[in-house]
Amino acid sequence: MIEVGVVGGTGYAGAELLRLLARHPEVCVRCVTSRQASGERVSDLYPGLRGALDLAFEAPETAALSRCDAVFFATPHGTAMAMAPALLEAGVRVIDISADFRLRDPELWARWYGQTHACPELLASAVYGLPERARRAIREARLVACPGCYPTAVQLGFLPLLEAGAVDLTTLIADAKSGVSGAGRSAKIGLLFAEVSDSFKAYAAEGHRHLPEIRQTLEEAAGASVGLTFVPHLVPMVRGLHATLYARLRQTELDVQALFEKRYADEPFVDVLPAGAHPQTRSVRACNACRVAVHRPQGGDTVVVLSVIDNLVKGASGQAVQNMNLMFGLDERTGLEMPAVMP
Amino acid sequence: MIEVGVVGGTGYAGAELLRLLARHPEVCVRCVTSRQASGERVSDLYPGLRGALDLAFEAPETAALSRCDAVFFATPHGTAMAMAPALLEAGVRVIDISADFRLRDPELWARWYGQTHACPELLASAVYGLPERARRAIREARLVACPGCYPTAVQLGFLPLLEAGAVDLTTLIADAKSGVSGAGRSAKIGLLFAEVSDSFKAYAAEGHRHLPEIRQTLEEAAGASVGLTFVPHLVPMVRGLHATLYARLRQTELDVQALFEKRYADEPFVDVLPAGAHPQTRSVRACNACRVAVHRPQGGDTVVVLSVIDNLVKGASGQAVQNMNLMFGLDERTGLEMPAVMP
Amino acid sequence: MIEVGVVGGTGYAGAELLRLLARHPEVCVRCVTSRQASGERVSDLYPGLRGALDLAFEAPETAALSRCDAVFFATPHGTAMAMAPALLEAGVRVIDISADFRLRDPELWARWYGQTHACPELLASAVYGLPERARRAIREARLVACPGCYPTAVQLGFLPLLEAGAVDLTTLIADAKSGVSGAGRSAKIGLLFAEVSDSFKAYAAEGHRHLPEIRQTLEEAAGASVGLTFVPHLVPMVRGLHATLYARLRQTELDVQALFEKRYADEPFVDVLPAGAHPQTRSVRACNACRVAVHRPQGGDTVVVLSVIDNLVKGASGQAVQNMNLMFGLDERTGLEMPAVMP
Amino acid sequence: MIEVGVVGGTGYAGAELLRLLARHPEVCVRCVTSRQASGERVSDLYPGLRGALDLAFEAPETAALSRCDAVFFATPHGTAMAMAPALLEAGVRVIDISADFRLRDPELWARWYGQTHACPELLASAVYGLPERARRAIREARLVACPGCYPTAVQLGFLPLLEAGAVDLTTLIADAKSGVSGAGRSAKIGLLFAEVSDSFKAYAAEGHRHLPEIRQTLEEAAGASVGLTFVPHLVPMVRGLHATLYARLRQTELDVQALFEKRYADEPFVDVLPAGAHPQTRSVRACNACRVAVHRPQGGDTVVVLSVIDNLVKGASGQAVQNMNLMFGLDERTGLEMPAVMP
Repeated sequence: MIEVGVVGGTGYAGAELLRLLARHPEVCVRCVTSRQASGERVSDLYPGLRGALDLAFEAPETAALSRCDAVFFATPHGTAMAMAPALLEAGVRVIDISADFRLRDPELWARWYGQTHACPELLASAVYGLPERARRAIREARLVACPGCYPTAVQLGFLPLLEAGAVDLTTLIADAKSGVSGAGRSAKIGLLFAEVSDSFKAYAAEGHRHLPEIRQTLEEAAGASVGLTFVPHLVPMVRGLHATLYARLRQTELDVQALFEKRYADEPFVDVLPAGAHPQTRSVRACNACRVAVHRPQGGDTVVVLSVIDNLVKGASGQAVQNMNLMFGLDERTGLEMPAVMP
Repeated sequence: MIEVGVVGGTGYAGAELLRLLARHPEVCVRCVTSRQASGERVSDLYPGLRGALDLAFEAPETAALSRCDAVFFATPHGTAMAMAPALLEAGVRVIDISADFRLRDPELWARWYGQTHACPELLASAVYGLPERARRAIREARLVACPGCYPTAVQLGFLPLLEAGAVDLTTLIADAKSGVSGAGRSAKIGLLFAEVSDSFKAYAAEGHRHLPEIRQTLEEAAGASVGLTFVPHLVPMVRGLHATLYARLRQTELDVQALFEKRYADEPFVDVLPAGAHPQTRSVRACNACRVAVHRPQGGDTVVVLSVIDNLVKGASGQAVQNMNLMFGLDERTGLEMPAVMP
Repeated sequence: MIEVGVVGGTGYAGAELLRLLARHPEVCVRCVTSRQASGERVSDLYPGLRGALDLAFEAPETAALSRCDAVFFATPHGTAMAMAPALLEAGVRVIDISADFRLRDPELWARWYGQTHACPELLASAVYGLPERARRAIREARLVACPGCYPTAVQLGFLPLLEAGAVDLTTLIADAKSGVSGAGRSAKIGLLFAEVSDSFKAYAAEGHRHLPEIRQTLEEAAGASVGLTFVPHLVPMVRGLHATLYARLRQTELDVQALFEKRYADEPFVDVLPAGAHPQTRSVRACNACRVAVHRPQGGDTVVVLSVIDNLVKGASGQAVQNMNLMFGLDERTGLEMPAVMP
Repeated sequence: MIEVGVVGGTGYAGAELLRLLARHPEVCVRCVTSRQASGERVSDLYPGLRGALDLAFEAPETAALSRCDAVFFATPHGTAMAMAPALLEAGVRVIDISADFRLRDPELWARWYGQTHACPELLASAVYGLPERARRAIREARLVACPGCYPTAVQLGFLPLLEAGAVDLTTLIADAKSGVSGAGRSAKIGLLFAEVSDSFKAYAAEGHRHLPEIRQTLEEAAGASVGLTFVPHLVPMVRGLHATLYARLRQTELDVQALFEKRYADEPFVDVLPAGAHPQTRSVRACNACRVAVHRPQGGDTVVVLSVIDNLVKGASGQAVQNMNLMFGLDERTGLEMPAVMP
C-alpha cells in the first residue's frame, strides 16, 4: 500500500482527491491537512465521505507528511513550493495539483503569479504531469506538476495538430468554458449561486494564468513559438470543462480524424469520438476521461476541436492519481476506472 | 460471475444500472434490451459508458434473457409482469425496478395503474425489496420488487417511529421533493430544461402512485392502518430526493435520535446523521446511501425526519444491485462502495 | 413625484427595489446608500440597471434621506431601528423590508434576533405591511414593516382557513422552499454555486426567525394561539418561494376552493388557481403576484395549500412598493403590473 | 392603438412577445393563434399571463388576422411564407420572427432550410430587421424579417469592425453560446432538464442555419465576401446568449474601444461597456439590450468582442416589438424600457 498525505483537503480538488483515494485499492490515506479546519473530521465537512474516510484534518506541521510515500498538494499556489523541498529531501514523492511547478521559467512564473518563486532550482527536475506527453518522465519523477484544468483540455485538443505540424502556429484560438468548481471553494460574491446561475460570461479575456502554461507545452510540441488567444468563460454548472479550439490547416488534404485517432490510439484516458460528434461535458462527469471530437466546418481549412474533461478529475485530482500510479509503477488506470455519472 | 440481462436499458434507471454493473466485480452483463434502440450501441446513447460496456441494445425477444442468472427490469410498468413468468419458469431470478410487483393486492394495483395485473398469482411470492425491512426474505427470493424512489426515502424515514409505535398513525405527512431524473427519460414538454429550471412546484397533490406502496409498508410495520398525506414536488436538479416527514409523538419523552441510531446501527446503507444535522441530497449523489436526520422543533411533540437518497441509486438501480447481492449470497455492499460525488 | 431614498441598495432586495422604482411612474429615486459601496455607481454593481438608474451609492450619513418623502430599508436587521426614529421625526415615511419592526413584542424580537430592540416604543405604531390583512392601516401608517418572504407565502396560504375557523389550530404545518436569493447577497461558502446547485436540503428545522412573525399574524387572524411547525428548505434556483401548507379541517363538508376564491376575490395580487392546479414558482417570477391552489388529497380532512411568490417581489421589494402606493394614495398596482417572466 | 395578431403563440418567442405586448401602451392584442392549442386560454398555458392577457388561442383560419394592423409570426419556418402574401395584400404589416424572409437569395434559403421558398418574389422587399443597420428601411417596410438570436449578437459585435474595414475578413470566428429556450418549446429528449442541466456542449459545428444569415449582413457591411467560422453551444440556462468573436486587426494602432463607442453612441439598445468589462448574460435578462465589450488580449492584433443579449428579447420578440415601433412611427423604445431582471 502506498501511504499518502494530502495537503489542503478542504477545497474541491482536495475533496475530489479524497473521493478517488478512498476507493483506490493500492492507497492508504495517512493524513489530510488543513490549517483552518484543523481538528474537524473530514466527513463533517464532506458528508459524502461518511463511512469512506475516517480522518480528521491536521495542521500541516503536525501531520506525518514526511513519513508518507507520496504527498499531494491541493492548495492555492504558494504552498507547495514552500513545503516541497523538505519533503523531497525526506524521500517523499510530491504530486502538486497547484501551479507552483508548472512553468519552467521562474521569471515567467513570477510575472503571472505576482510573487518570487521560492525554489526555482526545483523547476528543472519537476515534470509537467500530462501523461499523454510525458509518461516516461513521470515514471521517473520525484516531483510532478499536474497541469491546470484549462491546459489539460486545450493541450490534449491541440497536441495532435501541433506535433504533426499541421496548422498555422500564429492564429490559434482556445475558447474555453468551465464549470464553477474550477474557481475553487472560496467565499466570493462572484461565485454565489444567485450570481452565477442562469447566466454566462467570459472572464480574464486580457490574460489568464493558464495561458503561459498552455503555450509552454504547445511550443515544446511544435518546436516553435506559438500565437495563442485564450478566453475562458464561466458556465452555470458545477463540474465540466469544454474547450473549443480553432486552428488553420496548412495542408487542406489532411485527414484530421485519422490523425487524432492514431495519436490517441493507446491512450487509456483520451477518447476520440467518431467524426461528426459533439462531446458533452456530462459524458466525463466524475470520470478521468478526456473526450475529443474534430470538425472541419463546411470542409474549409479551419479545424475545430471540441475537447471535454471533468475539471476536478482529468483536470485536477484524477490526473494527479494517474500520475501517482505511473510514479509507483502501477497500472495507470488503477482506481480511475469508473464510468461517467450521467444523467 | 453472475450473468445478468437488463430489460429496458435506455431510461435513466437503466443507464444507472449499467454504470453500476459495469464495475461490479462479480457481474457480467450479457445483454441489454430496448425495442426502440435495438441495434444501437449502448455507448452511443450513453457516451459516459464508452470503454466500460461494449454491447448493443437487442430486441427483447432475441436477447438471451432466459440464459441469464438474473434479469433486471428497468422498464415502465406493464413490461415486467408480461415477461417475468417465463423467466422465472426458466429459473432466472427477476429483479424488477418497475412498479409491477410492489403491491400485494392486484385490485389496488389495477386501480392506481389503470390496467389489470397480468400475473396476480406471482404477487404473493414477490418480495418487496427494501433490505432494511426484508433482508432475509430477499435472500431467498426468486422475484424481487424494488421499491420506488419516494417510497424508499419515506419508508426509511418513518420506519423507526412506526415500528416502535412512537407516533400517531392518523396524521402522518410526507412532503417529498425529487430531482427531475425521477420522472424518466421521456420527451415531455413538462420535463424540458426551459420549463423546469429555476422553478419549483408540487404535483399529483391529489394522489401519486407511490402512495399505496408507501402505505402498504408502513401499515405492515405499524400493524395497523395508517393515515398518510403525501405530496411530491419537482426540484430543478437532476438527481436527488429529499423527504421531509412530519409525525406527532405519542410519548414526548422519547429519545428519537437514539431510536434512529439503534434501528440503523447495522445497516450499511442507512446513515443516521448527528442530532441537529440537515442532510443535503448531494451528500448521496451517485451513491447508495440514505442519510437521515431527526428533529423535534422547539422541543415539541412534532417529530420531523429529513431523509435523502439519490433517486437513481438507493431509489432505483443501486437498491436493485443491493438486492441482487443479497439474492446471490454476496456481501450486500459489493459494487456499491463508491462515496458520493460532491461537489 | 414621490421622492424616495433607499438604504442598503447592494443586496438583492435592494437591487430588486431599484429595478421596480426605476420604472415606477410616480417615483423619483433621490439617493441610494451603502456604506461599503459608497462612491461606486449603482449600475457598475448592477449592470442590468445601466441606462435605467444614474446614481452612485452614498454613505448613509451624507445622503439626503431626511429630505425624502419615503425611505426604504433593504438592510439586514438592526439598521432600520437605528435610523428610523430620526427619519420619522423629520416627517419621512419609512418602509422597512428588514425584520426590525415586524414583531409587536420587543422581548420576542430580542430572543429571536439576539439583541435588544433599539426603539420598542415604535412597535405599537408600526404596521405589519401585508395589504391583504391590513390595507386600511397601511394607508395611514408612517412606519410599515414589510413581511418576510416565508411569512408572506405562508400567511396568504393559511389566512382564509384561519379567518374562517375552518381548521384545527394545533397541528399546522408549513413546509416551505425558497430560492437562494432569499439568503441574501453575502459571501458565504454555503451559498456558493458549487455548494447549492443540483442539491436540496432543509435548514433551520429547529426554528427559523420567520416563525414568530408567521405565528403572530396567524394568531391574530384565528383569535387564538396556534401550533405551527415550519421547516424551510433551500432550492437550487435563484428566485421563487413555494409553501406547502397542511391543516386538518374541522368541517369536512367545507368547500375550500370557494372559501379561497371568495376571500381573495378583490385582491389584485393574490390569484386563486382553479381546483386541481399546482402553481409553479416561475409563474410569478419577477412579478408581484401570489398564486395559490387548494387541495384535499383523496377527499380526506387534510387540506393542502400550495402558495407561490417571487421572494424578492411579493416576498420583499414588490410588496414594499405596494405598501408605498397605499401610503401615498396611489393605485396599489402602480409600477407593479408586469406579467411574470417565463420561461 | 395598434391592433395586432400573433400567429404561433405557444412557443417561447410567442410567450415572450405576449408578455411584452400585454404591457405595451400603444398595442392591443386582438388574436393569438395556435393550431394545436386552439380553444385553450393563453393564460392556462402560460399562467404568468393570468390577469394580463384575457384571450384564447384560435385556429389561424378563423382568427381575424387580416383585420389587424400588424401580424407577428412566432412560428417555425415555413408558416410565415405561406400566410404573409394574403396579409400583405390585405394591407396588414407583417413582422416575422421566423427565418422565412431573412435571406435574400431563395436558393440559399432552400439549401439551408430544405424546402423551396413559397414566395421568393417577396424577398426583395422584405427588410432584414436589425434596426442598428436598417432603421430607415424598417420605418418604411411592410414586411420585416427579424434576425435570429445568434445573428443579432454576432452581427452587432462584428459590425463596427467590418464597417470600418478594420479586420481581416477571411478569418472571422464566432464562438456562440445560447440558453436552452433558444431551441424552442418542443418535446425533444435532447432538451430535457436531465439531459441539459449541469452539462455543456457544442452543436452543429459543421454548419448552423444562422450562418448564411450572419454572413449576408457581414458581407453587406464589409462590401466583400467574408470567411466566418461559427460554432454554437448549448448552455445550461434558460435565457441568454453570449457571442465571443475573434478577428485579426489590420491596423494595430486602432482604438477599438472608441470605434465601438462611436458606432453605438446613439443606439438605445446597444450598450458598449467600459474597457476591460465582461458582460454577463443576466445583465440583459428579460430586457432588450445588447451589451458589448471589446478586448485586445495582451495588446496583440487579435480583437475579442463579447456580446450578450437575451435570446428571447433582443434576439427575438423584443426586437420584433422594436421593429413594430419603428414601422408605426412610435418611439423605438416604447414598451421596451424595463431594466434587466437580476439576480
